[in-house]
Amino acid sequence: MIEHKYQFRVAYPDTDKMGTVHHSVYPKYYEIARWELFRSIGVAYSQVEEQGFMIPVLSMNFKFIKTTRYDELLTVVTTLKSIKGVRLWFTYQLYNEQSELINEGETELAFVNAATWKPCPAPEFVLSAIQHHTRKQWLTVAN
Amino acid sequence: MIEHKYQFRVAYPDTDKMGTVHHSVYPKYYEIARWELFRSIGVAYSQVEEQGFMIPVLSMNFKFIKTTRYDELLTVVTTLKSIKGVRLWFTYQLYNEQSELINEGETELAFVNAATWKPCPAPEFVLSAIQHHTRKQWLTVAN
Amino acid sequence: MIEHKYQFRVAYPDTDKMGTVHHSVYPKYYEIARWELFRSIGVAYSQVEEQGFMIPVLSMNFKFIKTTRYDELLTVVTTLKSIKGVRLWFTYQLYNEQSELINEGETELAFVNAATWKPCPAPEFVLSAIQHHTRKQWLTVAN
Amino acid sequence: MIEHKYQFRVAYPDTDKMGTVHHSVYPKYYEIARWELFRSIGVAYSQVEEQGFMIPVLSMNFKFIKTTRYDELLTVVTTLKSIKGVRLWFTYQLYNEQSELINEGETELAFVNAATWKPCPAPEFVLSAIQHHTRKQWLTVAN
Repeated sequence: MIEHKYQFRVAYPDTDKMGTVHHSVYPKYYEIARWELFRSIGVAYSQVEEQGFMIPVLSMNFKFIKTTRYDELLTVVTTLKSIKGVRLWFTYQLYNEQSELINEGETELAFVNAATWKPCPAPEFVLSAIQHHTRKQWLTVAN
Repeated sequence: MIEHKYQFRVAYPDTDKMGTVHHSVYPKYYEIARWELFRSIGVAYSQVEEQGFMIPVLSMNFKFIKTTRYDELLTVVTTLKSIKGVRLWFTYQLYNEQSELINEGETELAFVNAATWKPCPAPEFVLSAIQHHTRKQWLTVAN
Repeated sequence: MIEHKYQFRVAYPDTDKMGTVHHSVYPKYYEIARWELFRSIGVAYSQVEEQGFMIPVLSMNFKFIKTTRYDELLTVVTTLKSIKGVRLWFTYQLYNEQSELINEGETELAFVNAATWKPCPAPEFVLSAIQHHTRKQWLTVAN
Repeated sequence: MIEHKYQFRVAYPDTDKMGTVHHSVYPKYYEIARWELFRSIGVAYSQVEEQGFMIPVLSMNFKFIKTTRYDELLTVVTTLKSIKGVRLWFTYQLYNEQSELINEGETELAFVNAATWKPCPAPEFVLSAIQHHTRKQWLTVAN
């Protein structure tokens, strides 16, 4: 649906005594990456919360394929797969400097009312940013 | 196969601006819990590494059911489901003070040689601790 | 003024690729330790926040004396040095299993109104818990 | 001596239930900033470790002046103050988007042999990169 690339370096405290990145750090990388995808279509996640919504994680799955290490320049390819009702799905592929796939992840999230934590449909300004961007992509492909 | 309970309190830096525990913290809770299960059968994970082995995570899945908050006393029920060849599987159920299930997880891990990161069979002292404990359980049930 | 001991184990993600505990983790250890001191005199920090107060850190200083490693059983000796106006001061000594001093820290904190972040005097129930505990100590010493 | 600016955004897991950045996160920000200063003069910290050296923290002091929040774009001004024998000193000023000073820090570090953890003089390639850069600055000022 919508794809985005985000590049970053492995920080020192991301590592553990194995010398590689601790597995609990990957959810943090992917969270930054998905909100950068949002930013790329004109929606800052901070704005989502300011409007009274939150988007917590319902489930997450990760597959560790290769290790990485301190200071490596990594690239996440994030895909917003779909939005249906209150839920949205992202997938992530993480590549090292040699373009090798080192990790894959998927997360399911839901829109909730920030005051009540009750699930709610995606706010209009988020939906229209997504539709606007998807139509633009389609037009680009069509021409 | 082997089950273990581990209790702990939610620390302040585990929380995020939603007021609940950040989703990246649950893998850390479950890691502590699985090595406490190991300790309960007489194997410290530090000892595993001192013997030249490591047990990195191959995949992890988490389902977020209810939120929790700072200072809540949580209980993880950890189960070592099976060991087969170089791999082992754990599942986790996380309960709050009202005994409500708030999170479920599963992790697949592998024994590797600490020097080469090559997968290898479980070291003898780990296998025999597991067998010893499983037999003891069986005898307890049988009597 | 008030002293408290808190014991815990170094968790795996606390380590970094040096094989020791990352320096950013010590403030987390000391935060848990100071609120355990509070708990020991009958005040849960969660209760402080529920009453509409927060106690953020104004400054912190740490001295790294010896390294520690995964799974070591550490003991923090926390001292509430003084409360004056809106501020309070804690010091920390961290010991390893051989009773060697491995780290020293001090933090200055302030009571603030949780809604406005304006500094405010310590709430009555905190002050009276401290006075009650200090008088009890004095009586113990006197007898 | 040498100054460097590093800009970054506050990530979601950096926040805690106060809605601001947890105090334990600032040491992580400053660590990234000081190795970016090193990178700017041609020395990657990863290279320092590959050459058999490490530069652990001996002491750190932080002053919290103003709060910050999720997604704010922050700028650290890092200064390498001096290198003397086995030790080196950095200071840090952290500014928000309104150019307000929100935090100040200083860290004292030491070069150690990675195998023995024994303090040792700064390696030649680090010293010459610093001298080269300092002379360049001086020439720039002189012209």
